Amino acid sequence: MDYREVEGMREYVARLDHGRDWRGQIEDFAAAEDIDAAFFFGLGAVRDATLLFYDQGRQEYEAVEFDEPFEVVPAVGNISWLDGERFAHTHMTLSREDGSVVAGHLDTATTFAGELYVREFDTKLERAHDETTDLDLWPL
Amino acid sequence: MDYREVEGMREYVARLDHGRDWRGQIEDFAAAEDIDAAFFFGLGAVRDATLLFYDQGRQEYEAVEFDEPFEVVPAVGNISWLDGERFAHTHMTLSREDGSVVAGHLDTATTFAGELYVREFDTKLERAHDETTDLDLWPL
Amino acid sequence: MDYREVEGMREYVARLDHGRDWRGQIEDFAAAEDIDAAFFFGLGAVRDATLLFYDQGRQEYEAVEFDEPFEVVPAVGNISWLDGERFAHTHMTLSREDGSVVAGHLDTATTFAGELYVREFDTKLERAHDETTDLDLWPL
Repeated sequence: MDYREVEGMREYVARLDHGRDWRGQIEDFAAAEDIDAAFFFGLGAVRDATLLFYDQGRQEYEAVEFDEPFEVVPAVGNISWLDGERFAHTHMTLSREDGSVVAGHLDTATTFAGELYVREFDTKLERAHDETTDLDLWPL
Repeated sequence: MDYREVEGMREYVARLDHGRDWRGQIEDFAAAEDIDAAFFFGLGAVRDATLLFYDQGRQEYEAVEFDEPFEVVPAVGNISWLDGERFAHTHMTLSREDGSVVAGHLDTATTFAGELYVREFDTKLERAHDETTDLDLWPL
Repeated sequence: MDYREVEGMREYVARLDHGRDWRGQIEDFAAAEDIDAAFFFGLGAVRDATLLFYDQGRQEYEAVEFDEPFEVVPAVGNISWLDGERFAHTHMTLSREDGSVVAGHLDTATTFAGELYVREFDTKLERAHDETTDLDLWPL
């Protein structure tokens, strides 16, 4: 396991905007606050969601769209650089009103309500192509 | 996205009491320690659970009761003020012994065992009625 | 609820090794860095997983093996001492490419990719047998 010791910097609590994309507004926040490395934790609800699943054999993402309301239980992710922009890598677990659950790598989701804790680190994390997995990972 | 920069204050590791309500004992702890704002992260097991789902159209919570044992994988939530009391807003993902999962906004659950990390912030978070969603959210 | 106030110490971001056991490499990291108490949060993907479920009546763990690829959404756990070794108590939620989910207490899982945030505390957490649950819990 490769790792980097980091110092905790700024911390935030946030309320996501109703009607806006969950991931996009985290990325906009990261750009506005000049955050180069962070982890975040969220809970709330969304109106719909497109989740991506990485086919480990074919090494391609497949999208699945869900056009229904969900509770977010929870969202866990991190902020780092990818292709010259800040990217919020977000995995989200979603539940329906009968309690049933879907989950995956978040592409887009329209926020109904959301609460977030963000912890910034004093480093710059930048993703680079990894040959083994064909994913963009951190060289640490 | 509205947000507030906060400073981290006290941190705790905790073991939840067997046989007591999961959320209630976090709220009792928050009152005993005078915690006005925190996020927490937990794992463990419960004997039963009542989960709430917010109907985004009708803007009402619906309860679903599960009278069976579950692993808690995980619980993520926060502590803030609501109607003059400390409220532990908790979303919980629960799994059965075949691996199947239910999840949602936690009302009550009888703790079998539980481990918690709590991070307090140097602010007071107080929920207020939000007209758009009819939920009690943080004005940040 | 029993609890201990702790001070945050070292923090790390990590990239888990492809092809190695998820939990084992966190335990190796904890041993290499002399970490006696921590919580961690992760996301990523695995190729397979063996999850354990604690039968609360019989007070025994039952194993369920899943021989398929999953997204990790998320993994939440902690590091403490158990029987003279560092143990990474890990609960993991896993999703398939149709979004369906299984979850539980992680025994083993072969990492495809993984990203981790680790927060160390200035205390030693050591598990001891708990008579009520027959589990190894923290005396706090």
